Amino acid sequence: MRVSVIGGSAVDNQTYETARRLGALLAERDHTVVCGGLTGVMEAVCRGAREADGETIGILPGERRSAANEYVTTPIATGLGNARNALVALNGDAAIAVDGNMGTLSEIALALDAGLPVSGLDTHDIEGVEMVDSPEAAVEYVESARR
Amino acid sequence: MRVSVIGGSAVDNQTYETARRLGALLAERDHTVVCGGLTGVMEAVCRGAREADGETIGILPGERRSAANEYVTTPIATGLGNARNALVALNGDAAIAVDGNMGTLSEIALALDAGLPVSGLDTHDIEGVEMVDSPEAAVEYVESARR
Amino acid sequence: MRVSVIGGSAVDNQTYETARRLGALLAERDHTVVCGGLTGVMEAVCRGAREADGETIGILPGERRSAANEYVTTPIATGLGNARNALVALNGDAAIAVDGNMGTLSEIALALDAGLPVSGLDTHDIEGVEMVDSPEAAVEYVESARR
Amino acid sequence: MRVSVIGGSAVDNQTYETARRLGALLAERDHTVVCGGLTGVMEAVCRGAREADGETIGILPGERRSAANEYVTTPIATGLGNARNALVALNGDAAIAVDGNMGTLSEIALALDAGLPVSGLDTHDIEGVEMVDSPEAAVEYVESARR
Repeated sequence: MRVSVIGGSAVDNQTYETARRLGALLAERDHTVVCGGLTGVMEAVCRGAREADGETIGILPGERRSAANEYVTTPIATGLGNARNALVALNGDAAIAVDGNMGTLSEIALALDAGLPVSGLDTHDIEGVEMVDSPEAAVEYVESARR
Repeated sequence: MRVSVIGGSAVDNQTYETARRLGALLAERDHTVVCGGLTGVMEAVCRGAREADGETIGILPGERRSAANEYVTTPIATGLGNARNALVALNGDAAIAVDGNMGTLSEIALALDAGLPVSGLDTHDIEGVEMVDSPEAAVEYVESARR
Repeated sequence: MRVSVIGGSAVDNQTYETARRLGALLAERDHTVVCGGLTGVMEAVCRGAREADGETIGILPGERRSAANEYVTTPIATGLGNARNALVALNGDAAIAVDGNMGTLSEIALALDAGLPVSGLDTHDIEGVEMVDSPEAAVEYVESARR
Repeated sequence: MRVSVIGGSAVDNQTYETARRLGALLAERDHTVVCGGLTGVMEAVCRGAREADGETIGILPGERRSAANEYVTTPIATGLGNARNALVALNGDAAIAVDGNMGTLSEIALALDAGLPVSGLDTHDIEGVEMVDSPEAAVEYVESARR
């Protein structure tokens, strides 16, 4: 299935490695990563997915595909600014949030509003988000919720 | 100034009256109400503003202006679905949240992300939102934050 | 009714004065001008409308309302880039095109696609556009088409 | 490169076969097809591309990926209605128009506005569009224009 991974664009090393591990797990289980296509968690999850030969879709806020991080296999330029957050939510069957600030919170809310199961790693503890403590648990939750 | 008022589309009588009082206060202080143009808090705040001769802008998710509640003086059709939430945030100088669910939470997050001061009445208690207990306090906060 | 006026952002004096006269006529007949909010035809039509005490809505491509020309009474920031062209079409009951290049052509096409009557002054001669030779005739056509 | 193929959603058999042949040519030459993801020319070009093992991206107006035709390998839901036409233009390095009505005309105009080379088969004869009489010539034009 497609899993939208949302999270901060500026992260510390530990969070980066968590997101990278998450990307690898998703790819190993044949899920496609959908994200905002830029830096931080978005880059790390795409990198991990690519290292496991997965597919990654980056839905960008700007008009240029070249702004995508190098691990995005299918960049989609939107030119919509923050309104593109709604598209990141629409294009997943489930969502996983990692860290992040207000942009991430808006995407969590849009994903829940669209009825997606959402798990969270060290992120906003919103009602409806299954807070977990490992990438493995994050993937297991969204897989079981979609079964 | 313009104040984006965000909140649930289905509300109880007490919340409706709170939002209506908020609309009246905003109009009396020469602020223009911006909202999503539909029912619940959106209708109540526009109604209160109109009863005090204020202006109200409704930024609608659909393609038809006729979907606006009857108290919207300037309906704007977008056809963008939930992506229009970003436009509600962009078009205020400040935001006030009343009640609400996930759509409201996404708009709070987008407003904070855009740097707007946000006050909240019986809504999501997010870091950055000034939680208050009356429409008067909600208006005072956003006025003082913009001074 | 609302009339979307679309046209070039860089125009010669004669075209500017034509658009300004068009804005005055629309305001005198109690129509609200909708446009893209920027320079050229957009500025001229808003200026003419304001000189006749009319209302003008500017639907802007960027995120800042301050980018609107000084004759816009209700600026709407979208942050959508060229995708906002669809909103200019959606928010009129009819459209009038003046001069213009590819942006204008896209808006003419979107307006016709949305079923709006469209008249044109020295612009793209597309099937479905009523080509006229004066602002008066442009207004008369869209008024009669909506009757 | 990516080639946005734009055209009517309801077409006759001959146009369908032309678009299908175009899709096959694009895939054989290692181009990715970008389109609106629905019926008519959009379906035919994706079908031809898939029959030659190509990749196809469908940028949909609605919120459901399941609305994509069966030959789309990467459906992108937008929920933007006609505003998604701008995204179809943004996501190509070049565009080819086949037949079509006003939606197609708006996309041609948006593609030209974005600086893309555009060739046309039995479509709107707009200044800037290279009118050709075969799928082969359509592909050759956009390839040579991007060299």
